[in-house]
Amino acid sequence: GAFGRGTGPRPQPGPRPAGRAKDPPRTIPLACTLEELFTGVTRKYKLSKTLTDPMGNAMQLEKVLQIEVQAGWRQGTKITFEREGDEAPDRIPADLIFVIEEAEHDRFRRDGSDLVYTHKISLTQALSGCEFEVEHLDGSMVPVVIDYVVSPSTEVKIKGRGMPSKKGPGNLIVKFDIEFPARLKSKEQVAFLRDGPFGL
Amino acid sequence: GAFGRGTGPRPQPGPRPAGRAKDPPRTIPLACTLEELFTGVTRKYKLSKTLTDPMGNAMQLEKVLQIEVQAGWRQGTKITFEREGDEAPDRIPADLIFVIEEAEHDRFRRDGSDLVYTHKISLTQALSGCEFEVEHLDGSMVPVVIDYVVSPSTEVKIKGRGMPSKKGPGNLIVKFDIEFPARLKSKEQVAFLRDGPFGL
Repeated sequence: GAFGRGTGPRPQPGPRPAGRAKDPPRTIPLACTLEELFTGVTRKYKLSKTLTDPMGNAMQLEKVLQIEVQAGWRQGTKITFEREGDEAPDRIPADLIFVIEEAEHDRFRRDGSDLVYTHKISLTQALSGCEFEVEHLDGSMVPVVIDYVVSPSTEVKIKGRGMPSKKGPGNLIVKFDIEFPARLKSKEQVAFLRDGPFGL
Repeated sequence: GAFGRGTGPRPQPGPRPAGRAKDPPRTIPLACTLEELFTGVTRKYKLSKTLTDPMGNAMQLEKVLQIEVQAGWRQGTKITFEREGDEAPDRIPADLIFVIEEAEHDRFRRDGSDLVYTHKISLTQALSGCEFEVEHLDGSMVPVVIDYVVSPSTEVKIKGRGMPSKKGPGNLIVKFDIEFPARLKSKEQVAFLRDGPFGL
């Protein structure tokens, strides 16, 4: 993760009494949309924990944990809430560890701090130029002007419009899915596509 | 570790029923071209081994091993020559294990028992049809007739012309790398590429 991990509110560890064992940590997946990871978001988690007193009486406690998801956090980023597990005599409560899970997005694919967007264009647009806008994760519109031939391997890099990151934002990479006509053309019809004096 | 791995000298195992310990096997990579794996090939390996007699006198022995590489063998296939390692009293010679390493090919990529070949065509060929031949791994020519529009996602499957395999030969998959013109065309020039009564 690019940002500091585990910066959740953590209680001061008290003196550890000899003989008490700590429960193993509990891991909780925290699914986030790419939009949430782009802008950052505060997520609330309702925690239910069991408190057992020395007499063996158990009571249930409900508590809301607040997780400050920072803009640019990645898949696997961990946020630890120390000793928030069930409480029982002679045990040290477990740590709760939230682990960021990045949900798949239907339009953008994340590649490190870059965002990859595939734009569908017709072959006529690929050959004669086009303009379009990409709706970004925060709803803003990114204009793209194409005044050159787009081939299947063309990639347009829009600097700084990728995911936030400590090292500075990544790039937005626009790739193309070129729709071809369904029906064959004649050799004469397509001859002009060749460059050069005879093709033009 | 709980099982005391690799800590200090370990007691010599006592005499086994067979009386002799076997040397650990020796692995030898055997690089093969895709052509060799397509047709099968006999490869020779000059083995040099040391023979030590009970008096401690060593002599060098040279021997030629013959490896029958079968058509269709894959990366990682192992061929074992038992007890062909160095010989010494009170030891069982090591096995020699040849491991097939498939060299990268400049025109074909193997995918299981399929072969993937990428053919370069111009955009005019993609739009107006074309014929070409693929020179196969055994030098034979595979004719391909394209009488439909080739888009960047087009794949032509030629059944049974892939790698030999026990389950029957795989397929030859032809993919396309479509070369686009370098210079932009006008909207009017490319309008005919649209299908339909006004585009034709």
